[in-house]
Amino acid sequence: MISLLGKPIKEKIVDDIRSRISKGQMINAYIISNPNSFEASSYKKLISDLLTKLGIKVTDSQISSQEEAEEAISEANKDKLASVFICRPLMVEDENRIIELVPASADADMLTSVNSGRLYKGDMNYLTGTSSSVEAIIDYYNIPVQGRKVFIIGRSISVGLPIGLMMLKKNGMVTYAHSKISLDDLRQEARKTDILVLASGKRGLIRKEDINPRGIVIDCGYQEDGKGDLGFDPECQMFTPVPGGVGPITISLLILNAFKLKFGE
Amino acid sequence: MISLLGKPIKEKIVDDIRSRISKGQMINAYIISNPNSFEASSYKKLISDLLTKLGIKVTDSQISSQEEAEEAISEANKDKLASVFICRPLMVEDENRIIELVPASADADMLTSVNSGRLYKGDMNYLTGTSSSVEAIIDYYNIPVQGRKVFIIGRSISVGLPIGLMMLKKNGMVTYAHSKISLDDLRQEARKTDILVLASGKRGLIRKEDINPRGIVIDCGYQEDGKGDLGFDPECQMFTPVPGGVGPITISLLILNAFKLKFGE
Repeated sequence: MISLLGKPIKEKIVDDIRSRISKGQMINAYIISNPNSFEASSYKKLISDLLTKLGIKVTDSQISSQEEAEEAISEANKDKLASVFICRPLMVEDENRIIELVPASADADMLTSVNSGRLYKGDMNYLTGTSSSVEAIIDYYNIPVQGRKVFIIGRSISVGLPIGLMMLKKNGMVTYAHSKISLDDLRQEARKTDILVLASGKRGLIRKEDINPRGIVIDCGYQEDGKGDLGFDPECQMFTPVPGGVGPITISLLILNAFKLKFGE
Repeated sequence: MISLLGKPIKEKIVDDIRSRISKGQMINAYIISNPNSFEASSYKKLISDLLTKLGIKVTDSQISSQEEAEEAISEANKDKLASVFICRPLMVEDENRIIELVPASADADMLTSVNSGRLYKGDMNYLTGTSSSVEAIIDYYNIPVQGRKVFIIGRSISVGLPIGLMMLKKNGMVTYAHSKISLDDLRQEARKTDILVLASGKRGLIRKEDINPRGIVIDCGYQEDGKGDLGFDPECQMFTPVPGGVGPITISLLILNAFKLKFGE
């Protein structure tokens, strides 16, 4: 059993950001959050801390209504160096409308229609934070995907869907499941997959006996108890532990992706 | 064995377009094609014929270079009622660049990043022609998708990928395969799927014995011999024949979708 750790990858990414900054590249970060959104609070702290540590200017917009959120984006849009980080869920009337107000080049979360469409059409430079973290793990640890069965539980546009597109681009046979699939079908599929990706935010779908001993498990979850969607260390060939696997990479990649959006590869 | 015929659906769609026109809605069609592109020629004829029959003005731009194609789009962009139909493959240097020059509201093919992204983010109004045809068949014949296994062979952004998104939205468990998957894995998967979708443009991947007798087969192919990707009538619960299944619906839906893009639902 090999533990796929995120730390060495995170360190490389942070070095990459520092090297960009030393070459004169810079962004101004605008963090939009709703203080009532408990789910987004740990994410917000992590991103603020790393941005500050890197010497990036942070404008912290705490909003509690649609109007305030739209105003915060308008403010950011006056700044050519702006990169917007939206801490979801924003708990406002129409979150997607706020996302779509962000110009593509400032859309660090990669959730505008334009950037989503670029990804969908095959450009992996537009992967979201979590999905690019999973790609980084696949690449760093040389995990073969071509011709392999990849089973993804979850279909959100920020996690499950883009991970599937990335795995498809790497020539995997990709299956998406979700909460409307029977537990029996879901577990049967899990047992025979080569790569199992947990991306639903739900605990208890997959039990110890549903893990393929010759498979690889990638857990994108982070639950209140500090563990992932799985909640246990699986007996299999390789797995990403929670904490320590996917999570540590995501925040640094979000910032690196923001630089790439502004300044290119 | 039930044959899922496209004709009754096509007739309803043509009626819908005529009713929109009688209410005063109108588009001006700009067809961009390369006369050297043999693959696109039958498509071009079908779309021209139906547009003309419906009394829609057609500007026929035959191009043979990147510059000519870009010029044709610039010309269309001067017309507020323009809907652009690109006959792919255009056989030019950068087809995607040409697609991206089309404004979202004139993008009848639904292949710009903006419209692709809207689809990817969950809005099924932005399905491509073929994928909305498959949706029309599913809906018209009340084919249950929720909780069912859907197996899609093909991952193009015009056919395979959007069909999968649509099936996922209908709560199916969706698996994508393609040419890099071994024939053994592909056929094994086909045999146990509830809904098999052929969308690769390749003959010979699936044989008679790979068809699930209790399944449904949807064939989006159209090959030189006038038959689909399958090439035979499968022994199963229901199937779309070629010719007569998906094909007849696509052209009429492309035109209806162009009206919807301009004037809304």
